[in-house]
Amino acid sequence: MSSYTFETLLVDISASGVAHVEINRPKNLNAFSHQTWQDIGRCFAQFKSDGNVRCIVLSAAGRMFTAGLDLKDAMKRAAERQKEDGSRDVARKGYYQRLYLLEFQDALTQVETCDKPVISVVHGACIGIGVDLNVACDIRIASEDAYYCVKEVDIGMAADIGTLQRLPKVVGNDSWVRDICYTARNVPAKEAQAFGLVSNVYKTKDESMKAAFELAETIASKSPVAVVSTKHLLNYSRDHTVQEGLEYTALWNALAHNSKDMGVAMMASLQKQKATFPKL
Amino acid sequence: MSSYTFETLLVDISASGVAHVEINRPKNLNAFSHQTWQDIGRCFAQFKSDGNVRCIVLSAAGRMFTAGLDLKDAMKRAAERQKEDGSRDVARKGYYQRLYLLEFQDALTQVETCDKPVISVVHGACIGIGVDLNVACDIRIASEDAYYCVKEVDIGMAADIGTLQRLPKVVGNDSWVRDICYTARNVPAKEAQAFGLVSNVYKTKDESMKAAFELAETIASKSPVAVVSTKHLLNYSRDHTVQEGLEYTALWNALAHNSKDMGVAMMASLQKQKATFPKL
Amino acid sequence: MSSYTFETLLVDISASGVAHVEINRPKNLNAFSHQTWQDIGRCFAQFKSDGNVRCIVLSAAGRMFTAGLDLKDAMKRAAERQKEDGSRDVARKGYYQRLYLLEFQDALTQVETCDKPVISVVHGACIGIGVDLNVACDIRIASEDAYYCVKEVDIGMAADIGTLQRLPKVVGNDSWVRDICYTARNVPAKEAQAFGLVSNVYKTKDESMKAAFELAETIASKSPVAVVSTKHLLNYSRDHTVQEGLEYTALWNALAHNSKDMGVAMMASLQKQKATFPKL
Amino acid sequence: MSSYTFETLLVDISASGVAHVEINRPKNLNAFSHQTWQDIGRCFAQFKSDGNVRCIVLSAAGRMFTAGLDLKDAMKRAAERQKEDGSRDVARKGYYQRLYLLEFQDALTQVETCDKPVISVVHGACIGIGVDLNVACDIRIASEDAYYCVKEVDIGMAADIGTLQRLPKVVGNDSWVRDICYTARNVPAKEAQAFGLVSNVYKTKDESMKAAFELAETIASKSPVAVVSTKHLLNYSRDHTVQEGLEYTALWNALAHNSKDMGVAMMASLQKQKATFPKL
Amino acid sequence: MSSYTFETLLVDISASGVAHVEINRPKNLNAFSHQTWQDIGRCFAQFKSDGNVRCIVLSAAGRMFTAGLDLKDAMKRAAERQKEDGSRDVARKGYYQRLYLLEFQDALTQVETCDKPVISVVHGACIGIGVDLNVACDIRIASEDAYYCVKEVDIGMAADIGTLQRLPKVVGNDSWVRDICYTARNVPAKEAQAFGLVSNVYKTKDESMKAAFELAETIASKSPVAVVSTKHLLNYSRDHTVQEGLEYTALWNALAHNSKDMGVAMMASLQKQKATFPKL
Amino acid sequence: MSSYTFETLLVDISASGVAHVEINRPKNLNAFSHQTWQDIGRCFAQFKSDGNVRCIVLSAAGRMFTAGLDLKDAMKRAAERQKEDGSRDVARKGYYQRLYLLEFQDALTQVETCDKPVISVVHGACIGIGVDLNVACDIRIASEDAYYCVKEVDIGMAADIGTLQRLPKVVGNDSWVRDICYTARNVPAKEAQAFGLVSNVYKTKDESMKAAFELAETIASKSPVAVVSTKHLLNYSRDHTVQEGLEYTALWNALAHNSKDMGVAMMASLQKQKATFPKL
Repeated sequence: MSSYTFETLLVDISASGVAHVEINRPKNLNAFSHQTWQDIGRCFAQFKSDGNVRCIVLSAAGRMFTAGLDLKDAMKRAAERQKEDGSRDVARKGYYQRLYLLEFQDALTQVETCDKPVISVVHGACIGIGVDLNVACDIRIASEDAYYCVKEVDIGMAADIGTLQRLPKVVGNDSWVRDICYTARNVPAKEAQAFGLVSNVYKTKDESMKAAFELAETIASKSPVAVVSTKHLLNYSRDHTVQEGLEYTALWNALAHNSKDMGVAMMASLQKQKATFPKL
Repeated sequence: MSSYTFETLLVDISASGVAHVEINRPKNLNAFSHQTWQDIGRCFAQFKSDGNVRCIVLSAAGRMFTAGLDLKDAMKRAAERQKEDGSRDVARKGYYQRLYLLEFQDALTQVETCDKPVISVVHGACIGIGVDLNVACDIRIASEDAYYCVKEVDIGMAADIGTLQRLPKVVGNDSWVRDICYTARNVPAKEAQAFGLVSNVYKTKDESMKAAFELAETIASKSPVAVVSTKHLLNYSRDHTVQEGLEYTALWNALAHNSKDMGVAMMASLQKQKATFPKL
Repeated sequence: MSSYTFETLLVDISASGVAHVEINRPKNLNAFSHQTWQDIGRCFAQFKSDGNVRCIVLSAAGRMFTAGLDLKDAMKRAAERQKEDGSRDVARKGYYQRLYLLEFQDALTQVETCDKPVISVVHGACIGIGVDLNVACDIRIASEDAYYCVKEVDIGMAADIGTLQRLPKVVGNDSWVRDICYTARNVPAKEAQAFGLVSNVYKTKDESMKAAFELAETIASKSPVAVVSTKHLLNYSRDHTVQEGLEYTALWNALAHNSKDMGVAMMASLQKQKATFPKL
Repeated sequence: MSSYTFETLLVDISASGVAHVEINRPKNLNAFSHQTWQDIGRCFAQFKSDGNVRCIVLSAAGRMFTAGLDLKDAMKRAAERQKEDGSRDVARKGYYQRLYLLEFQDALTQVETCDKPVISVVHGACIGIGVDLNVACDIRIASEDAYYCVKEVDIGMAADIGTLQRLPKVVGNDSWVRDICYTARNVPAKEAQAFGLVSNVYKTKDESMKAAFELAETIASKSPVAVVSTKHLLNYSRDHTVQEGLEYTALWNALAHNSKDMGVAMMASLQKQKATFPKL
Repeated sequence: MSSYTFETLLVDISASGVAHVEINRPKNLNAFSHQTWQDIGRCFAQFKSDGNVRCIVLSAAGRMFTAGLDLKDAMKRAAERQKEDGSRDVARKGYYQRLYLLEFQDALTQVETCDKPVISVVHGACIGIGVDLNVACDIRIASEDAYYCVKEVDIGMAADIGTLQRLPKVVGNDSWVRDICYTARNVPAKEAQAFGLVSNVYKTKDESMKAAFELAETIASKSPVAVVSTKHLLNYSRDHTVQEGLEYTALWNALAHNSKDMGVAMMASLQKQKATFPKL
Repeated sequence: MSSYTFETLLVDISASGVAHVEINRPKNLNAFSHQTWQDIGRCFAQFKSDGNVRCIVLSAAGRMFTAGLDLKDAMKRAAERQKEDGSRDVARKGYYQRLYLLEFQDALTQVETCDKPVISVVHGACIGIGVDLNVACDIRIASEDAYYCVKEVDIGMAADIGTLQRLPKVVGNDSWVRDICYTARNVPAKEAQAFGLVSNVYKTKDESMKAAFELAETIASKSPVAVVSTKHLLNYSRDHTVQEGLEYTALWNALAHNSKDMGVAMMASLQKQKATFPKL
């Protein structure tokens, strides 16, 4: 059996196939250390080929979702890298810095490519890298005290772990997207909902978690072939023309239609019973 | 003169160029048989080169827009195909299944590529393939009793006739899109409007139809060169970069600017009269 | 020092790096002459490599934003071109007409590619080419009396200077986009806001201008490397897959992370002071 | 059983699955009438879903491969269209002309998308549309008397049925491609071979046909799943990045690996016998 | 009338429409100063809309085609830029350096986008930027003493003005392309021909020039609509899928088929005379 | 220091930065076991961030380059997977099979993305997966006894680890590519050279190795920033339009021009000495 033990994450998988991933550095306000994003990358990569996992809820322990990058950790690592860089000139340093950024990005991209839907729940602050992570999720829920902040311009850089790529593709108001990316201002949950970043806002974190788990249980009760295919095809289609998306889908389903799940669903429907689908 | 006689559709074309396509299998709740989508494909392909048609209203007869795929018909055809497939292995069956899906997709894509704007009116249920069809239309109107359902995961498969490609491109809230695609829940008209799937909701089907026809008459009264070009270029630009869309548009208009319609429009404007444009 | 003197534009650059571009043909209702779009193209191209400019507010003098194309000027130029065209056949005329459209498009595209954020303020009418121009801006603000009109079908043509490319990418309701593009109807500010074309509406032009300048000052006070990078990367990512956007971003930041601004920001944060960033 | 009866083509299918398509208008030097390309389109579309066909040899009867477009037929049709066009202005005529060209292109594209390899044999002249057709084939063979001519510039137009798209992608010398496209000069078989348009040249048409059929028999004796997949994936990969081609291939083979053919091949190999694969 | 006066180029246009561009800094071995590439950009941009120019021959005066970049000039400009850069940090310098490279690239891209075929003739050395320039031409001819050198790695950088983009697309042997790009070795004319960089090699520069002009006259005698369309469509199709190239071509020709040239060609053909086409 | 110890590979790195990778399963004719491709993936991924490696020579020990896939190993693993698959239906098996193929592909793609040039030397047979591997290399050299075989159709499947994607992009004769992919015939070294798969053929393996190492030493003596950039940009440009390749290159070099190597090269050139560049 696969084990999910990570330094910075708590992972719990229910019998019904709902995994709960909790970012667990509350004393550091869940600030992202190097270890944190590596753990996230590994955890979601593992979910991809684990048939026991059908849907994932992602939340964070303590006072807030995340305060953003862990600057202490970043500075420690920068010092190490400086030693490693030695007498490297700017071009050489840049070559390795680019590889590092690609590795960082790849970790969060695992959330998108794990093929199982990911529901995020944000409470309190969700800053910088927290937004990068949230826009890689499928469905975004927040409690009323939540707020989002694309903080990067305030530390003198452009967001580079996914916000500038994914945020405009999950939200339908480009004027607003640019406003919050250029100003780094705090966006309260209700505003985030009005502009489409979040689809539901609940009073408290508890209520948000409850709603997230109910939704996750519903999704986990569906045919895993159907659900995984739907996520995969939505992601593929986002990045291709409609015609290319259709052709890839036809090929995908020429394979996926060989699952037993269509028969199971039909039989359950005839018998007016709830269908039970085997795991992926 | 071209004739529009189809087993599953009623087609009526007004003198002003507004075609009304009515899905007409009310006894079967307009469930989509093999014949239905083939008729739709042929009908809209015919519209493409019929200068008498300038704008199309698509609706359905009876109690609802559509109950989705006609399962009886699908099973009958599956049985036939099974005979045809004979001793074919999974790879061989899949090869032909893929061709079948492409043919099915192509039929609905005719709605998009016919170049004349299509306004859909939904009342009652609009399930599964009904959503695939609606997102291929240009403008979506609904009556208050309408509801939408991306039903496919409930029958053990991913939607494969266009919903996963087009829905996220006509709606600006990706979180919501994924919610309804993963859960197969019913989406009432008002919610569909709030999240952008529908641009207008009216009390009754009658009021919706009236609004749709008024809008269609307005569009049909405009220069057909202008309207057809606008639809074609919006579709092209959706699937290309801004720069590529601009270059294709410059080429298109270098041809289209040779129409008489710009002169007609200017003359009418000077004479403070309504312009009348010859058909395409 | 660079000078910004244009026949049809007033340009003013504050010490803080906020440029104000005012379209200044109030007697002609700011109708776009050939000179107007050429001036816009040159002005924003100049902004691109002018480190003194960090953010731009674009507005118009007089009664309205713009009445659209200057038809008198267009007709005069058409007459000149006719002479130039001489005995050219349709294919030859079309060849040059296409080059002309590309030149026109390129001028407005400078607004997008100048890399500094552009905030537009619309009051009164914003017709035809005015919409093409606005959707090339970053953030759109309007006063309550503003209205937008994709006028082109009413003069017998498809919009060809950017509206059909950019409008659907800045707004999240495709059904509505097509409605207003096919009907050429006037869209009041409040409706434009509800559907996402505008992110804020203020009572009067004065209030709108005030809000725009406050926002511009905020943006101009941020690290110019961060802001310029953010705009550039948002535009690049809009036209590429998420993965391609990420890879380009990693390369971009491997260079941009060599700015002093990250250190400046961190130092200011430690000292609880406002950071002051050198110009680009 | 499917029948292959065409006015302008002779079709013969061997028991081993090699189809021979012979363009059969020798009295007209196989000039392409409207009927000819429509027949080609239909014939190859039919091959696509006909499991009895595994490989195709395409050649022409009489003195040469083809003299190009049938001008008499083209003029007759142009006269008809002119009647149809009536008082249509240039923009309207152009709209329908474009649809006509797309239909013409689609017919030849069937040769590429039929998924079964097509070996062309050229003898004598192969002019204009003959080149469009040949570059849509998989493998090109010629007899020594053959010559090719991208004739279009000599009749005052650019080739528009595929030569300008496919020729540069089947040949590795762009300097030469442009030379023959700009000059419309005759290219003898030996030169065509030296620059890569043809992979083999034989003394006579008979020898060429013999070589083509031997090659076709070899291909037809292979696993049809393997061969069809190979052609499909080569075409897909030509038009995509390496990474996209790989991902599509992985999906394709996740399905195709369910064929019996891999077992058949392995068993035959162990038994040192020739494998016999069931038809597609 | 347009005038072609450039500091570093001699331009001569024949009555038949053949322009001769001669790089004319023989004392500097035609090394590329800043002025040189700016002149080339402007010259070919002017050709684009000059109907008197139908085909271009590009060669160089003196002992060789070019010794590459003019290092003295480059160093002088670098010194100037350094002053301009002042206290700019690496990120800021890089921002402007990138704009400079894009401007440099755009100048040579004019050779490709001017739509009139360009035949280059190389004699003696063709080094560095000379290769960038040559691969942007349509047809490459060389004299036996010519040699090519992708010199950039020898000066510590990757070629950045087009060689790495265009060379692999004009030559069919990627193994060889990488060999010469990684080693910066001299490639003699005969080897260049064998691997496809050059389509013809002649004994002397004089013979090469004669052949080039004969070819240019042939091309200039063809329908300019046909020739310009062919070049434009070849370039467009290189950068798009076959299907996209076909669709763009159908649109292009729906316009271009309105030229008189097809009638002129047909009439001339019937009268067994040489057609004479009006200029573009 | 990094260590390169692999079960199936011998790795040796010279002081000058030339790595030699030898596939080392001579008793199994270097047939590819699961371990083999995993080792290749890890080895080349390690090269990417190892500044001590500047150029790589890839060859194989024993009688031949490789006999292709190790069927015994493949069958053993298939049996294991069957156990793992248990009662999975075809859709579920296919899901995991696809992940497996992607992992396999990714391993060989490391050869391409390691950014250091790879020179392959083939002697004797190079079958199936051996071709997939070779076309991912930069420069291909062979001894006279070498032959290539795209074997896959003979085992009932399409090549799926890169041959169908990369072979047509490294070779300029599509007719020949399809011939060898459909027939699975052996291609002798001389034929491979004539059609562009190999750029040089030497008498013996020894001579080939000597030539490869000489070439590798030459490349390793160049600026590593220049060489790595050149490979990276060639690969990027292969998969993008010319314009996109140029823009990415301008950004890349705005960073890379900050290396010391340009100064080193210039200084050496002035002093007529060989430049010595620090490692990456």
